[in-house]
Amino acid sequence: MSDGVSTRLQPVLDHLNADFDNALKRWQDFLRIPSVSTDPAYNDKAREAGQWLVDQLTEIGFTAELRDTTGHPMVVAHHPGPGDASGAPHLLYYGHYDVQPPDPVELWDSGPFDPQIVDGPRGRRMVARGAVDDKGQLMTFVEAFRAWQAVHGTLPVAVTAFFEGEEETGSPSLVPFLKANAEELQADVAVVSDTGSWDVDTPAITTQLRGMLYTEVTVTGPSHDLHSGLYGGVAPNPANALTRVLGELHDAQGRIQIPGFYDAVADPDAETLRQWHELGLDEEAVLGGIGVPASSGEQDRPFLERLWSRPTADINGIWGGYTGAGSKTVIPSQAAAKISFRLVPDQDPDAVLAGFRTFIAERLHPGCSFELHTHNGSPAIKVPTDSPYLQAARDALADVYGKTPVNIGSGGSIPVVGEFKDVLSIDTLLMGFGLDDDRMHSPNEKFELACFDNGMKAHAALLERMRTLAAQRDAAE
Amino acid sequence: MSDGVSTRLQPVLDHLNADFDNALKRWQDFLRIPSVSTDPAYNDKAREAGQWLVDQLTEIGFTAELRDTTGHPMVVAHHPGPGDASGAPHLLYYGHYDVQPPDPVELWDSGPFDPQIVDGPRGRRMVARGAVDDKGQLMTFVEAFRAWQAVHGTLPVAVTAFFEGEEETGSPSLVPFLKANAEELQADVAVVSDTGSWDVDTPAITTQLRGMLYTEVTVTGPSHDLHSGLYGGVAPNPANALTRVLGELHDAQGRIQIPGFYDAVADPDAETLRQWHELGLDEEAVLGGIGVPASSGEQDRPFLERLWSRPTADINGIWGGYTGAGSKTVIPSQAAAKISFRLVPDQDPDAVLAGFRTFIAERLHPGCSFELHTHNGSPAIKVPTDSPYLQAARDALADVYGKTPVNIGSGGSIPVVGEFKDVLSIDTLLMGFGLDDDRMHSPNEKFELACFDNGMKAHAALLERMRTLAAQRDAAE
Repeated sequence: MSDGVSTRLQPVLDHLNADFDNALKRWQDFLRIPSVSTDPAYNDKAREAGQWLVDQLTEIGFTAELRDTTGHPMVVAHHPGPGDASGAPHLLYYGHYDVQPPDPVELWDSGPFDPQIVDGPRGRRMVARGAVDDKGQLMTFVEAFRAWQAVHGTLPVAVTAFFEGEEETGSPSLVPFLKANAEELQADVAVVSDTGSWDVDTPAITTQLRGMLYTEVTVTGPSHDLHSGLYGGVAPNPANALTRVLGELHDAQGRIQIPGFYDAVADPDAETLRQWHELGLDEEAVLGGIGVPASSGEQDRPFLERLWSRPTADINGIWGGYTGAGSKTVIPSQAAAKISFRLVPDQDPDAVLAGFRTFIAERLHPGCSFELHTHNGSPAIKVPTDSPYLQAARDALADVYGKTPVNIGSGGSIPVVGEFKDVLSIDTLLMGFGLDDDRMHSPNEKFELACFDNGMKAHAALLERMRTLAAQRDAAE
Repeated sequence: MSDGVSTRLQPVLDHLNADFDNALKRWQDFLRIPSVSTDPAYNDKAREAGQWLVDQLTEIGFTAELRDTTGHPMVVAHHPGPGDASGAPHLLYYGHYDVQPPDPVELWDSGPFDPQIVDGPRGRRMVARGAVDDKGQLMTFVEAFRAWQAVHGTLPVAVTAFFEGEEETGSPSLVPFLKANAEELQADVAVVSDTGSWDVDTPAITTQLRGMLYTEVTVTGPSHDLHSGLYGGVAPNPANALTRVLGELHDAQGRIQIPGFYDAVADPDAETLRQWHELGLDEEAVLGGIGVPASSGEQDRPFLERLWSRPTADINGIWGGYTGAGSKTVIPSQAAAKISFRLVPDQDPDAVLAGFRTFIAERLHPGCSFELHTHNGSPAIKVPTDSPYLQAARDALADVYGKTPVNIGSGGSIPVVGEFKDVLSIDTLLMGFGLDDDRMHSPNEKFELACFDNGMKAHAALLERMRTLAAQRDAAE
């Protein structure tokens, strides 16, 4: 804890320490609700989790409601903040109460919905489905709200809490709901805790998220499956043709060969690259952790750039012909693959798709034809690094960790960030507390209690830093 | 029918004409037995079909038995021939009484085991599972035996009939049975009717069969499936790596790039190539029939050479990663493919396998590893075109069709031919009567009655031509 936190914040942090065991109990109550969103058998449980949040928020001064959608309900809650901070920003906190299915259940050391606090190399940790993704991260700011309310009888700024129950199913109701309720959800900046720290002691803000274009290509050769003895040597084989095309996605140096693919790709600014370099990522440790002797990708680019600021082309699935046991001498009629491209800022998914179409057409055997369609596409996200909100988040993290946070990138995409930008025209602060080894989506998912503790306190500090933004601005005027 | 068939043969041919309707009835009885070898539910029916053949052969002068194996039983039957032809060759007739499953049953115009004689563009045809493969072809020589026995009270030469019931399941009992009974099955030459005529009026003898090496390669990248956002750009993707390797199987001219692949490949002799050229195959019609606008393979080689005397490399199956509906952002841990090579005479399957291993190793991404294994391998077959037996078969076909038969190749393999050569050290005459459009293994399988009629008569003539071989040889000595 750094010195110099405000006299308003300090008692809130003290309260969080004093109330820590109760916070763990509330978090466990939430984790016990098996709010699996992908399985209709759990529909009641999803609603129960949403209602549980409504009750929590109501208890701590919010006006909270469950709002129906065609899928799982949304939680919308408002807290007006104090009467004396009308110049402070209005914050929109987003989280999701649904979780991934726990399968394979037999690989869990304890019940996925029976949260256990166990000892680990970094102290105690919570083990349960949703421990980190996203119930644990969501609870870090709900507990921060609770502490502020308990100590000061209000929050330092106006807050809207907006939680969905469909994040693990692709958020089908999110954009329609945002559009229908844009006025009510309007805020100055959004706050999302669905990302990670750099390590348990080093806070991080994610300022760059790759986007994605996910495609599927189907190659057709003969009108029906053929006997490879009778036709082999003359019949165009769509599996051979597909591998020929996809085998050329990268050149020998790992560069993607789609025409125009890198046209809009820019390097991060020098300061960002400097910060990344200083992180001193242990490349060997990462490769060892996934059991491979060598990395892929652009061999002339540093490892972290390849992960965070360089685009990719990965085959996520491929299939065609006979895939059972033994042998079948078939020339298949079709072969297909799912190929996704991770995109970086300024790459246009539509332009990449057009380039990929040309790439295939130029290489496909003339005896075959192809169809290409997209499953989804979203551009990359860059959070402005010069905004006062980002500075407030950096200050808040420094207040709690006693250490300057690092700006990091993330290779994955968080679609809600783009949707807040598109529909509500606001940026998002990605201030998260997960660690790489938290086993999101896997058996024995966990969240370190130390991370949870830091998260609650960082959110408590963020609320205060946002309040003082207005005061700073007033003083400057 | 040409002039000059022997006075012994002519009444046999006349008898075949007179008895034609009865032959159709016997053939239909055989087709009604659903002797599907791949489904244990039909085990009794397979045995019933074998026993039906034993009864037929016993009725026409053979000593016939059903012999048990660990799978479906073998039929072994001997006919001593006449006492006065001891110098004539002893013939071994092979066929199989099992059939492919009839699925998809709903695509049949009549019951697959309810044989119907229907009109078609070439006259009447028999429609049923096994109509051509192999019950109909097998009955062509059983009926020839019956006619000889009826007219002359014996066969012109000694004959062993050897039928299996596992051809459609890869003949697992065949080689062990051949080895265990090699002395009993010894003969001078084997006769198999499992191939085709050139067309309904043009007889053919197949003198060249491609062999096969069937392999499966599994490429492993990360030790477990990874999230493509978090690891994309650095994690070697085995699906990308596999396509890169397999995409280079052929060069732009369709030539296979495996080191040493063509070392042993020789062109057929000039006379064979001349005959193939004269066949005037309609390449456009073949491509139209399989619905493709262009052929694959070696663009500088004539179409028939690519089918019959040039080796191939076809991906028969490929799989890896997520293959369900929608999208999943996975970098798979493994990807795999089944790749088969059709081989031509003098290519050694082991040498091709070694070359393929080198080919993969040279191209695989250094972050991945691979395993390669074979499902089966058999060299190509070349039937000596200068043997007296082949000449006898050519003469027999000319006797019946009034037209010189053509020597053709076949792109597929018939493993029993190699096994007769290996275990019994005898060559095989491939004298078959199917047509390309007989829909073997497909719904509405059929055999033209004209082909069946020519087949019976050609086999009747072959028996006589084999008998006179001895007389010719005696005269020459």
